[in-house]
Amino acid sequence: MPLAMISSAAPKPRKGAFTRDAVLREAMDLASVKGLEGLTIGTLSEALGLSKSGLFAHFGSKEELQLATVQAAQKVFNAEVFGPAVRAPKGLKRLCAVLDGWLDYVEQEIFRGGCFFASVSAEFDSREGPVREEILGCMDLWMETLARLVREAKESGELGRHADPEQLAFEFNALGMAGNSGFQLRRDPKSLVFARRAIRERLKTFAQPYARITI
Amino acid sequence: MPLAMISSAAPKPRKGAFTRDAVLREAMDLASVKGLEGLTIGTLSEALGLSKSGLFAHFGSKEELQLATVQAAQKVFNAEVFGPAVRAPKGLKRLCAVLDGWLDYVEQEIFRGGCFFASVSAEFDSREGPVREEILGCMDLWMETLARLVREAKESGELGRHADPEQLAFEFNALGMAGNSGFQLRRDPKSLVFARRAIRERLKTFAQPYARITI
Repeated sequence: MPLAMISSAAPKPRKGAFTRDAVLREAMDLASVKGLEGLTIGTLSEALGLSKSGLFAHFGSKEELQLATVQAAQKVFNAEVFGPAVRAPKGLKRLCAVLDGWLDYVEQEIFRGGCFFASVSAEFDSREGPVREEILGCMDLWMETLARLVREAKESGELGRHADPEQLAFEFNALGMAGNSGFQLRRDPKSLVFARRAIRERLKTFAQPYARITI
Repeated sequence: MPLAMISSAAPKPRKGAFTRDAVLREAMDLASVKGLEGLTIGTLSEALGLSKSGLFAHFGSKEELQLATVQAAQKVFNAEVFGPAVRAPKGLKRLCAVLDGWLDYVEQEIFRGGCFFASVSAEFDSREGPVREEILGCMDLWMETLARLVREAKESGELGRHADPEQLAFEFNALGMAGNSGFQLRRDPKSLVFARRAIRERLKTFAQPYARITI
């Protein structure tokens, strides 16, 4: 249960902490469907049956609420995608585990409207301000992580030296994002099949004959 | 000038037609930045210096305004992307011309917030109703067109028989969409370089040695 992990550091959270987690959980789901701009203290308090003043106590402004929601979503993403993958050995296996876990997270609709970051990065890409910067930070970290995983798979000798970590990180992200978007738009898992197949093909292009691709 | 083509059937448009075009032009730009939900009769009339009642005369409701905006954006997209490409001969050259024209359209920011359809499809993918259906129709037509162009390049013998039109349409769309999204989010044309390189590599995998890839 990834959402429980947000408060896993506090075994017996105060009532306020529970409320904050419940608000953020609802906020992430709402934002994945309606975007972060659709997230107002009004809509949230209505969805949760809480008073507006109670919500204001946790989040002083809409912007603070949006920032906290992005940070909470990143924790869920990390727990879902990296949690299982760190058990895989460094190299191609871990790269495959992350990509596989990511597509599972998309397919299982951990957030009601599909991938949270796909929704909000399209929403904020042409805006300015701290919310955009927060989202950009998450996306940059994700791209750097994918590139690092490719680099490690080259270092382990499983991917050949022609594999370009930045280029492949771009491609894997592109394919997974389009898998998510097609799945959300058409309610049809075919897009995710296309995404997995394309990622597998690209890995095959660079993998040593003995290397096992598990996606 | 693609926007002029919207009213190209009417050489001397009435005043009302001019206003409708001006409204739709502003609406497309606004929606590419703030999304179709950010598009209200209020924000539009303010941006254009028109009265709300004047706008209501053209668009009875927010939904009608959103639908008209999607239809107008499709005309601009077609003029920008397919207009130059139909001069290229059927087959690999036309496929390359469409993909190249699409990435040019993204890079030139024909819409203020980048690709209109990238923005609004992420916004409406988890919603219901006629606006979602209109966007889905545009996206389906785009994917079918890409698949048809791949099929024609197979028929002309330039792409080998292992090229899967639906799979490649998914991949090309994924790569261009991610090029757009990276360009919008990071204000850095590197994403578009990655997108072009990835598309070229995928075409090379299936192209006959004599075939010329012009992207």
